Amino acid sequence: MMINWNNLDTIQAYQELSKTAPVDLAEVMAGESGADRVKKYTVPMGAGLAFNYAAKQVDDEVLAALEKLAEETQLTEKFEALYNGEVINTGEKRLVLHHMTRGQLGDAVVVDGVDKREFYTEQQKKIAELADKVHKGEITNAAGEKFTTVVQIGIGGSDLGPRAMYLALENWAKANNTFKMEAKFISNVDPDDAAAVLNGIDVAHSLFILVSKSGTTLETLTNEAFVKDALKNAGLDASKHMIAVTSETSPLAKSDDYLAAFFMDDYIGGRFSSTSAVGGAVLSLAFGPEVFAQFLDGAADEDKLAKNKDLRENPAMLDALIGVYERNVLGYGTTAVLPYSQALSRFPAHLQQLDMESNGKSVNRFGEPVNYVTGPVIFGEPGTNGQHSFYQLLHQGTNIIPLQFVGFKNNQMDTDVVIQDSTSQQKLCANVVAQIVAFACGKADDDRNKNFEGGRPSSIIIGDQLNPATLGALLAHFENKVMFQGFVWNINSFDQEGVQLGKVLAKRVLAHETDGALKAYSELLNI
Amino acid sequence: MMINWNNLDTIQAYQELSKTAPVDLAEVMAGESGADRVKKYTVPMGAGLAFNYAAKQVDDEVLAALEKLAEETQLTEKFEALYNGEVINTGEKRLVLHHMTRGQLGDAVVVDGVDKREFYTEQQKKIAELADKVHKGEITNAAGEKFTTVVQIGIGGSDLGPRAMYLALENWAKANNTFKMEAKFISNVDPDDAAAVLNGIDVAHSLFILVSKSGTTLETLTNEAFVKDALKNAGLDASKHMIAVTSETSPLAKSDDYLAAFFMDDYIGGRFSSTSAVGGAVLSLAFGPEVFAQFLDGAADEDKLAKNKDLRENPAMLDALIGVYERNVLGYGTTAVLPYSQALSRFPAHLQQLDMESNGKSVNRFGEPVNYVTGPVIFGEPGTNGQHSFYQLLHQGTNIIPLQFVGFKNNQMDTDVVIQDSTSQQKLCANVVAQIVAFACGKADDDRNKNFEGGRPSSIIIGDQLNPATLGALLAHFENKVMFQGFVWNINSFDQEGVQLGKVLAKRVLAHETDGALKAYSELLNI
Repeated sequence: MMINWNNLDTIQAYQELSKTAPVDLAEVMAGESGADRVKKYTVPMGAGLAFNYAAKQVDDEVLAALEKLAEETQLTEKFEALYNGEVINTGEKRLVLHHMTRGQLGDAVVVDGVDKREFYTEQQKKIAELADKVHKGEITNAAGEKFTTVVQIGIGGSDLGPRAMYLALENWAKANNTFKMEAKFISNVDPDDAAAVLNGIDVAHSLFILVSKSGTTLETLTNEAFVKDALKNAGLDASKHMIAVTSETSPLAKSDDYLAAFFMDDYIGGRFSSTSAVGGAVLSLAFGPEVFAQFLDGAADEDKLAKNKDLRENPAMLDALIGVYERNVLGYGTTAVLPYSQALSRFPAHLQQLDMESNGKSVNRFGEPVNYVTGPVIFGEPGTNGQHSFYQLLHQGTNIIPLQFVGFKNNQMDTDVVIQDSTSQQKLCANVVAQIVAFACGKADDDRNKNFEGGRPSSIIIGDQLNPATLGALLAHFENKVMFQGFVWNINSFDQEGVQLGKVLAKRVLAHETDGALKAYSELLNI
Repeated sequence: MMINWNNLDTIQAYQELSKTAPVDLAEVMAGESGADRVKKYTVPMGAGLAFNYAAKQVDDEVLAALEKLAEETQLTEKFEALYNGEVINTGEKRLVLHHMTRGQLGDAVVVDGVDKREFYTEQQKKIAELADKVHKGEITNAAGEKFTTVVQIGIGGSDLGPRAMYLALENWAKANNTFKMEAKFISNVDPDDAAAVLNGIDVAHSLFILVSKSGTTLETLTNEAFVKDALKNAGLDASKHMIAVTSETSPLAKSDDYLAAFFMDDYIGGRFSSTSAVGGAVLSLAFGPEVFAQFLDGAADEDKLAKNKDLRENPAMLDALIGVYERNVLGYGTTAVLPYSQALSRFPAHLQQLDMESNGKSVNRFGEPVNYVTGPVIFGEPGTNGQHSFYQLLHQGTNIIPLQFVGFKNNQMDTDVVIQDSTSQQKLCANVVAQIVAFACGKADDDRNKNFEGGRPSSIIIGDQLNPATLGALLAHFENKVMFQGFVWNINSFDQEGVQLGKVLAKRVLAHETDGALKAYSELLNI
């Protein structure tokens, strides 16, 4: 089928969507109608998760319009083109292959004689071998002692995703006896970031992973020098303490400075790289390769659902289209991500990059300005913490903020406490349930200060437990959601030209090649 | 002077402000005009900081209109009324006295025969005495060994502010030999939060601070039980390991369960409590009472500037009014807080509560709906990390997001590294300078995908170093900004009725007294 890339405002189904009658959420979520919606508006996700959208401002009419929109914008076909190896990243003229790090969704994709699925699998295998040797004490420090700590040096996609995944699984791994090494992360060019991490670890027993696709990221190379100084000061040979994750063409690829090098390539964007060697090295060392493999399986499970042509059986596509409806028809500008799981404390920060860097664009795939809004602002903190922080504005503020909840029936560790006849986990779950209904239905009060208008939409992703497989599915869900939204908005979700200007100007500041405001600010900051 | 509380849309000066000519930021920030603005549009803050608003969309005409707005909305008089002890929190009919935790700005305020300034000072003195005894080993565990770790148990304002302040000063204290005890924080009702913290510490050498004003916060009492179980399992007497920070009327106040109790009261809102005993106990134990005293001095220094009637010499009021102009006239809905300091990693999360819980309101002080937007969404992460994450949307997204940068000339620790002729700290500063100019001025490119429109406003707070005094000033600046904005919007910034409905519904869920959607969701989560 011929694929057409058209702006959203030229799509017939979008015009129809704009004319659907708005759903009065407080009304439809009340009483038995609400109970019916909770049972009806749910779709299975990968690894046993479920996406429940009962508290979104949709009904069968809106959903029918979204189905037409999915069809007319050829979302399934565009995803097919992507995983079959077409050049979807039009800005940088690249393939987009992160799905292949966890599965083979369609045709084999061969680039320069290399089957990419085999290439990514081969890297995972090599990482697994290294991790096993480190865990068994076959690779040690110069004194023959086991490494106890792994430190990832990277920024952006080399930091946020892997860090969020590590924190998500740290306690699970401890409870399930798969915890191998503690992981730390150095990202910021702020010298105090590296110094604090280095002060908090035993460098003699630490293995550092330098992660930079290009091998030229300023922050990462600077922090590498920082770490090498620390190793040298401790009388250690840095090359016995460092591995690299990079592209085969990078200066880091064949350097004697590293114990080993593992590869990704230009077809894996940084923000989509948690399932590649970028996440693979640190997570395999921290938790063992088997845990990383389960994580990949969960993601692959979710990817398969994203192929479903039926919108109501495709959770990522459904989530994406409801988001477009909220953003472009209902006019909501921000989305809050609210996981009721302390282990997901940095998951919203990862989604912030994933979503805002992918879809924070003003031009379409052909470089022409679009006449409609694109990616929203994403922010969030775990519940119940957020309830005691910014939920006031979510409930009673002057703007409506769509909410993405995440909740699990069981916690990760085996300790809990019963207070007032319920466990903490039950309290946690009761709170997320209560919030969904409070936001949707509100509550009238004669004291307007205590009045809740309701009508504030949310969806919830529900699982039995946060574990490697469900985490993989959760991650892939949002990656695929962001991809589908980019297709609908007709933008290129896979480049990030917006980060370039700052880099250029920072170099000029450091070279003192400035005038005007740039020079004046430089003086204020003593540069 | 008679104080009038009027809605913003009835204010004459607001109508005039709405008619001012919009400033073309890309134009005025170019060339020498830009350099002039950087030098001209700056105002000293407390503790040697400076607030520079050159890259905001203001000029002398807009500033003149803001001056009229400040006058007509009687901001100085309202602040005076607040610190002189009038009932400013109309929702809960309470005084608002957090400024008194760090200074005496006006009249003595006596409640029930107690001078409140004396009361807060007395609590600080008692905390200092306890902290000194703990540090000297005069108060120890049952085995006569020194406590090494302090763990704060609290949520919302009892967690976010103190945690952000601790992280902001941890490395500074280590570099300046005032680091006394490591601090940890337990907040979430998620049982894995407490379990993970407890697994990571040596409970026998840990002192726990239970923080709850009412003594009834569900999360906090639940986590207290969690901690008591852990102490008991370790064969320890919990009452020798716990202190309380609460109000004098709370059930925790005179309990034998605690080594000591320190008091705050109903006139200190949780989100404004970092300078009270809520922040004082943990920070004094972690860094010593002298450090906490410097932090208070910095805040007091900033508070004094907030009294200035001249808008251009009142940084908090100026920041507040520029924010109102951006929110209500220019229509920007979100503000990003971007500190170029890893130590301020959780400062944006604290501001999120401070701002969104205070000003996320839809009714005025008299409970009448307002016809204009109020508090914005606040989010942020430290630079340069954010540059590699969500800055793409900030530069090239379809919505304009005002930015609040923070930068320091010097880092906190004494380690740095020179790469490509500059230190990491210089790179950090060069990046924030570059970003301000990139956002304001943009850069034309024939390739529209690489085009930057500019016109994206920011301000920057600049200091020599992040230390206790500058941190105090920084904190007080935002507290006062939020207060002034609440005055302009004619809302009550000091209550939080929006958090109540969720609490009520969560109790019903736990009691299984549900029907409709609440029951259906409860079943999905196995409650």
